[in-house]
Amino acid sequence: MAKALTKKSEDYSLWYNELVDLAGLAEHSEVRGCMVIKPYGYAIWEKMQSVLDSKFKETGHQNAYFPMLIPKSFFSREASHVDGFAKECAIVTHYRLKTNEKNEIIVDEDAKLEEELILRPTSETIIWNTFKGWIESYRDLPLLINQWANVVRWEMRTRLFLRTSEFLWQEGHTAHATQKEALEEALKMQGVYADFAENWMAMPVVKGVKTANERFAGALDTYTIEALMQDGKALQAGTSHNLGQNFAKAFDVKFTNKEGKQEYVWATSWGVSTRLIGALIMAHSDDDGLVLPPKLAPIQVVIVPVFRSEEELKTISDRVEKIQSELKSLGISVHYDHREGIRPGFKYAEWELKGVPVRLGIGSRDLENNSVEVARRDTKAKSIYSLDNLGESIQNLLGEIQGQIFIKALNYRDSKTIKVDSYDDFKKELDGEGGFLSAHWDGTSETEELIKNETKATIRCIPMDGDMEPGICIRTGKPSARRVLFARAY
Amino acid sequence: MAKALTKKSEDYSLWYNELVDLAGLAEHSEVRGCMVIKPYGYAIWEKMQSVLDSKFKETGHQNAYFPMLIPKSFFSREASHVDGFAKECAIVTHYRLKTNEKNEIIVDEDAKLEEELILRPTSETIIWNTFKGWIESYRDLPLLINQWANVVRWEMRTRLFLRTSEFLWQEGHTAHATQKEALEEALKMQGVYADFAENWMAMPVVKGVKTANERFAGALDTYTIEALMQDGKALQAGTSHNLGQNFAKAFDVKFTNKEGKQEYVWATSWGVSTRLIGALIMAHSDDDGLVLPPKLAPIQVVIVPVFRSEEELKTISDRVEKIQSELKSLGISVHYDHREGIRPGFKYAEWELKGVPVRLGIGSRDLENNSVEVARRDTKAKSIYSLDNLGESIQNLLGEIQGQIFIKALNYRDSKTIKVDSYDDFKKELDGEGGFLSAHWDGTSETEELIKNETKATIRCIPMDGDMEPGICIRTGKPSARRVLFARAY
Repeated sequence: MAKALTKKSEDYSLWYNELVDLAGLAEHSEVRGCMVIKPYGYAIWEKMQSVLDSKFKETGHQNAYFPMLIPKSFFSREASHVDGFAKECAIVTHYRLKTNEKNEIIVDEDAKLEEELILRPTSETIIWNTFKGWIESYRDLPLLINQWANVVRWEMRTRLFLRTSEFLWQEGHTAHATQKEALEEALKMQGVYADFAENWMAMPVVKGVKTANERFAGALDTYTIEALMQDGKALQAGTSHNLGQNFAKAFDVKFTNKEGKQEYVWATSWGVSTRLIGALIMAHSDDDGLVLPPKLAPIQVVIVPVFRSEEELKTISDRVEKIQSELKSLGISVHYDHREGIRPGFKYAEWELKGVPVRLGIGSRDLENNSVEVARRDTKAKSIYSLDNLGESIQNLLGEIQGQIFIKALNYRDSKTIKVDSYDDFKKELDGEGGFLSAHWDGTSETEELIKNETKATIRCIPMDGDMEPGICIRTGKPSARRVLFARAY
Repeated sequence: MAKALTKKSEDYSLWYNELVDLAGLAEHSEVRGCMVIKPYGYAIWEKMQSVLDSKFKETGHQNAYFPMLIPKSFFSREASHVDGFAKECAIVTHYRLKTNEKNEIIVDEDAKLEEELILRPTSETIIWNTFKGWIESYRDLPLLINQWANVVRWEMRTRLFLRTSEFLWQEGHTAHATQKEALEEALKMQGVYADFAENWMAMPVVKGVKTANERFAGALDTYTIEALMQDGKALQAGTSHNLGQNFAKAFDVKFTNKEGKQEYVWATSWGVSTRLIGALIMAHSDDDGLVLPPKLAPIQVVIVPVFRSEEELKTISDRVEKIQSELKSLGISVHYDHREGIRPGFKYAEWELKGVPVRLGIGSRDLENNSVEVARRDTKAKSIYSLDNLGESIQNLLGEIQGQIFIKALNYRDSKTIKVDSYDDFKKELDGEGGFLSAHWDGTSETEELIKNETKATIRCIPMDGDMEPGICIRTGKPSARRVLFARAY
């Protein structure tokens, strides 16, 4: 029997760590803060990549690849950017090892770099340095580039998928002729992320704008999608930045406009990372393991035979072969778990742990009845399905599960999105079950900082379709233009 | 008009560099030895990735991801491996920058790592250190893992795609219960690479075994596929290594066999990289630019309208829309170049430079005749095709081009594979047009080294289906068991 999972209600953090381990998603490596993404976890990432990559291409973007090593001086060019990123980073200083007299491998001090190289924490600097050579006139714009890459941010406290020193992501970097176009692009990509989160990950998100404190280092505005996890904490799931002309000025990227005049280019950048896998786990899973939305599940249907003899297994397997072809022809990914010497109950628990959306259990009696037992992972409900038109029935069921998981998460999120009008209530909610707290704030960074220091809650975003009614700041009593969303966050 | 390309026959090396630049494939970055892979070059890599990834999955492999940073000490564990790889590498020694009193960004000496980290030049060490936790019994074997990643090898003399400090690749790492199984795996993956090279890249390769001098650092045997470029130099296009128990012993990875006894695991690793793009360019291209095999061309068909008025363009565009749908429905990637203000001749030259396999030129008169002008990139031949069943005709043509490009390259390779029986002839051929020289060698590393120092030619491989007749070494006159393939190589 697989090792039992700690209950979510007992220790959410331990539940998460155990789940990542037991479902075979990832593990810590011996390298501080770096993770190994195991095959099952990576298969989820591949599904995510494939969907997102199509969406980027449909919206006119092309992939490219830029160096991972960035000269230290590049970071100094955009003043606020260096403060945000270059401080906690991995620094390459030498380019050769040698063997010393004791036959130990040591760094060769003669091979010291003239200028240190930084492992990219994000690629605005190296990309804008390159864009300078690619952009001359308005005909070269818009330039719509995306990169799939690994990045490094030196983290002291790490959690698998949520915060690691190295992680995988995509980063879009675009250049435009006008401020309006750059703003439209930043909003469009926020929309792509929201669509992906809701319609593929089945995870409802709030679209909003970040406050100055939470903005990307070097951006005019950061647009975000914010999700709520099952422990009442928020998770920033993707961001899209309107960079204005900051990087164009820092790297001197101008273009000749239609009137023949030189202008600085307008920029955006946007990214999502393997952090989304952490979000996916925390958004839906339960005490029995992962609950994966069908659209991102590496295996959508698992078939487990129930048999007593080799002969029985043979008969079942013959029929299962047909079922597999039928499902595959509909684009459904299916796995037949015919391992011998392992009880069906054990297999059921294992596939529940791995979050496979639908399980078919099939024995000789089912075959006689031309039927199969169908178990849903999300609700644990079991039903008997006819083998006639099984493919179509399963396809409909997968669609239903995808929708139900979203609705469940949406209901949870809505029930935990609370209007609070006093600082006492605010703190009470935070120390209770958490959630998104919709509250008035006086609009200053100082007050935001004060609230953060006192409660560990941050402003997740100023919601784009939020309540526009003015009020009074819960902390200072000063006038507030509108409510914003606070939460403790990952 | 686009900048003209230097002729291949005048300066092959310059021709290559200009072609990579003018076709928009890649460029040098400001970071020493690192390249920027531009969208068109990256699109070729994506095509390669997609085909290879399917082949790896069809042969039972799963993708995963391991940290890019490897502790220095890991390299010391496998003695020959450190000599081969850890010497010329990028070394991370610090993890923080700070601002000094002059407001300059400097490395924070207080943030020195206890143990230096190496940017992976290849991942055997970190992966085998991880496999130790994944393998307990024969039930865990075979373990068939692949990783798509960036790697860093500090190179002093770099060429775009062929040799850069950072490059992209895939690396397969597998663990097996028996020596026989590991050997079969190494040979299977060499076969997958050969199939990909010949049937997708249209590039004939010789399958062979490397000599001890050219073997992967830490392998028992390295299996290779070797291609011949149009300047008579060889290029190693992919390698697959039978690692024996070397890494299992270095990282203490044992398994319990069916008899309940502990044994060390048997291993393979295998990889191909963005170097393949360099090979693809050099295998087929000509003085007008790239020649891409249809199966890997990002754009397979380009359509150029020939028009004098807006009205004419409108009529043509309406018809082209139908042609595009027809081609797309057959899975053919097509681009309609309807840019205004640019002459068709200029467009033709541009798409020839980019190696698009088929160009359709279409004007009002063609429409009247229900026909279109079809130009092949490989032969430059033009024909008139009927618009009836155009999709099918083009599909057949693409297949024909794919085959013809391969046959042309095969004929070239065969004509440049020469049996030589004296050292004088050997040197004469090398200083002439190069090529694969099939010659006798006494089997010693000393003689191989001697020949390399005297002629810059190395033994590319001992061909697997080569001539087994014994003879006399061209350099030493000592007995030779069989001929091997020499060449100067990239």
